[in-house]
Amino acid sequence: MSVRAGLVITGTEVLSGRVQDRNGPWLADRLAELGIELAHVTITGDRPADLGAALQFMRNEGARLVITSGGLGPTADDLTAQVVADFAGRPLQLDEALEQRIGEIIARFARRWRLDPEALQIANRKQAMVPEGAVALDPVGTAPGLVVPANGQVVVVLPGPPRELQGSWAQAVETDPFRAVLEDATDYRQTTVRMFGIPESELAQTLRDAEDDFGLGGLEITTCLRRGELEIVIRAEPESEPLAQQLVERLREVHGPSIFSTDGSTIDERIAKLLGEQKLAVGESCTGGLLAGRLTDRPGASAYFAGGVVSYSNEAKEELLGVPHELLEEHGAVSAEVAEAMAKGAAERFGADYGLAVTGIAGPDGGTPDKPVGRVCFAAAGGGDETTVRCIDIPGARQDVRDRSVTVALHLLRLKLEGGEVPG
Amino acid sequence: MSVRAGLVITGTEVLSGRVQDRNGPWLADRLAELGIELAHVTITGDRPADLGAALQFMRNEGARLVITSGGLGPTADDLTAQVVADFAGRPLQLDEALEQRIGEIIARFARRWRLDPEALQIANRKQAMVPEGAVALDPVGTAPGLVVPANGQVVVVLPGPPRELQGSWAQAVETDPFRAVLEDATDYRQTTVRMFGIPESELAQTLRDAEDDFGLGGLEITTCLRRGELEIVIRAEPESEPLAQQLVERLREVHGPSIFSTDGSTIDERIAKLLGEQKLAVGESCTGGLLAGRLTDRPGASAYFAGGVVSYSNEAKEELLGVPHELLEEHGAVSAEVAEAMAKGAAERFGADYGLAVTGIAGPDGGTPDKPVGRVCFAAAGGGDETTVRCIDIPGARQDVRDRSVTVALHLLRLKLEGGEVPG
Repeated sequence: MSVRAGLVITGTEVLSGRVQDRNGPWLADRLAELGIELAHVTITGDRPADLGAALQFMRNEGARLVITSGGLGPTADDLTAQVVADFAGRPLQLDEALEQRIGEIIARFARRWRLDPEALQIANRKQAMVPEGAVALDPVGTAPGLVVPANGQVVVVLPGPPRELQGSWAQAVETDPFRAVLEDATDYRQTTVRMFGIPESELAQTLRDAEDDFGLGGLEITTCLRRGELEIVIRAEPESEPLAQQLVERLREVHGPSIFSTDGSTIDERIAKLLGEQKLAVGESCTGGLLAGRLTDRPGASAYFAGGVVSYSNEAKEELLGVPHELLEEHGAVSAEVAEAMAKGAAERFGADYGLAVTGIAGPDGGTPDKPVGRVCFAAAGGGDETTVRCIDIPGARQDVRDRSVTVALHLLRLKLEGGEVPG
Repeated sequence: MSVRAGLVITGTEVLSGRVQDRNGPWLADRLAELGIELAHVTITGDRPADLGAALQFMRNEGARLVITSGGLGPTADDLTAQVVADFAGRPLQLDEALEQRIGEIIARFARRWRLDPEALQIANRKQAMVPEGAVALDPVGTAPGLVVPANGQVVVVLPGPPRELQGSWAQAVETDPFRAVLEDATDYRQTTVRMFGIPESELAQTLRDAEDDFGLGGLEITTCLRRGELEIVIRAEPESEPLAQQLVERLREVHGPSIFSTDGSTIDERIAKLLGEQKLAVGESCTGGLLAGRLTDRPGASAYFAGGVVSYSNEAKEELLGVPHELLEEHGAVSAEVAEAMAKGAAERFGADYGLAVTGIAGPDGGTPDKPVGRVCFAAAGGGDETTVRCIDIPGARQDVRDRSVTVALHLLRLKLEGGEVPG
């Protein structure tokens, strides 16, 4: 019997889509690591009745563990502690030691930012109210998280800012009520297979064949296509683990060359590993800095990332990447020839071992019958081999073309670094 | 009496956080435009019972309109049509005209991608099953959306890929069942005020004062702090509109210099407008391309964006941005002096009117007692004035520092372009 959990993300700004929620995905990962099954996520505005209904929904759905994020701040629309207290039937009480602790933290901010002391004291006291019998966590920011037993369920109340939520979570899992829930969690094994360059329907056929040949009962399989990568997640309880391995073997047999990861690593991690201490420089046009931005997302990126040029104009391609004027005249900025010159130019200008370039038409304007919106050319130069160059047509809107181009560029580089054959 | 709606986002890949949902925010905007109140969003995996429970939750919560996204694909875990049919009590029936239409669409793909025809036919028929009495929309991709009357509610079933969802939505709002819901929707006016550079607690105090002075009943006010920007959304029914305007006036009086938008425009839109046809070039270190990436996010960015250099190493700062070696030696890469040289160098190398630079320590490593992680220096050069330079300490993890730095850089440039005073 597995333990189910529900996440309740609060805040009108998240509900309305003005702010992207980063806490749900992070908490989902933590739950998966603990072997807890995530049943539902709800996003709910700052209305007490709606938050109460979301908690009740999670109870009806059999969630032993409910985690809320947000609504612990100083403003009047921050209502989570009160609603959870009502839900658990545990009235709010002032925790004086906690009030003092928050006071000390806020005093530091107040000095730094010269804030109004009266506004602060109201905020301060509001954040020190704790449901009777609940565990108050040590504040990471100013708002303390709470672990609230609620008639057989446990509600973990976390602050909304990601850094505070993550620090509070680390404390919450160590509390007695949380540990009691963990004792019942299932031991799951999860395998993630990632592929690049095949359509989802071919994978679906492979899974149907595997089902016919040796059955897939006992496995939970989800597939997902994003930015041209196809991800298959296989979850198995311990007794179904050999079957999961058999399926991975089958995927290798049928789709071997398309598989780039079976150990959970991402393309970003593969690139970092393959480069090691070799340096990479990039030249980008339509991706406008997103390729460099993605490569520098990882801590320690300076070990392998030398730098990049965003050359939006032809002049910049000539001036900063040394693309010959005639090449631009003859083939146009979006061409295999110019991509190759950009890749070589980037490597040269930055003194890097490898150069990676993207030039294309992200749209919505700028397309021609000959070179439609979505046409993107890629080149990976260096390593003593010939430069690898590809032009493809990427479907979708401007954002899709830009995002997808970054991923395609990374895979082109990976294939070059792995020394395998690059599909046409 | 306002109309409430609920969104049900399906897909284990979204629930698990491996894929970021872009449909919820987009649909939330569309509902707000139509004056429909979004009550809840739920994210649910590919389990029929969980999807059914989410639909039931929305019914209990009084949602006249329920919108689902995802789960219409060809694979076996795509179950939305079946679950919605059961929920509405309308059995699935094969729509032969639709099957033929999908067949035609798929045949085009199949030729292009050389797909297996047998796998396609199964997928094809599955996607042509329509609940009895429901309206099937014309497929934008291969999966047709559905508008399903369900005992007084209307369930709009949309495909998951954003482009397909958006195209299907445009059709869905024109159907008879959807129009019937719209007739009851409230006419809301919404005003968005955006500020930069003040703490949330000061705004909270201003709102409390306004409440005391003239009352804010009848207004729905939400505030949200992100990346250093503070956003206040005020929603009012027509009779409360003058009160909303009174509040906006009060905000102007108290926080005038911090307000950068009252017409819904974002900092990105302000920058685009202020630049017009003047050109901007950027030099970035710790943001690693994200600043250029954000500036090129908008269609038509080439009108004002000349290009950028991502100079991760000191050599690159010297070589590509012309930062003097002595300056790096004397002040270090993260310094006001180097930021200024980078901004001027970027403008010069790209022949741009303005140069904007960011250099800092994003962490987690690289900090010193003197220059801690989060220290970031910014410079905005050009326009004939002195270069504006600021160094600040940004709290949070690597991603926070990088994201926030992009926003701070844009505001520094805005203040320069507006010609107002730049706060210390």
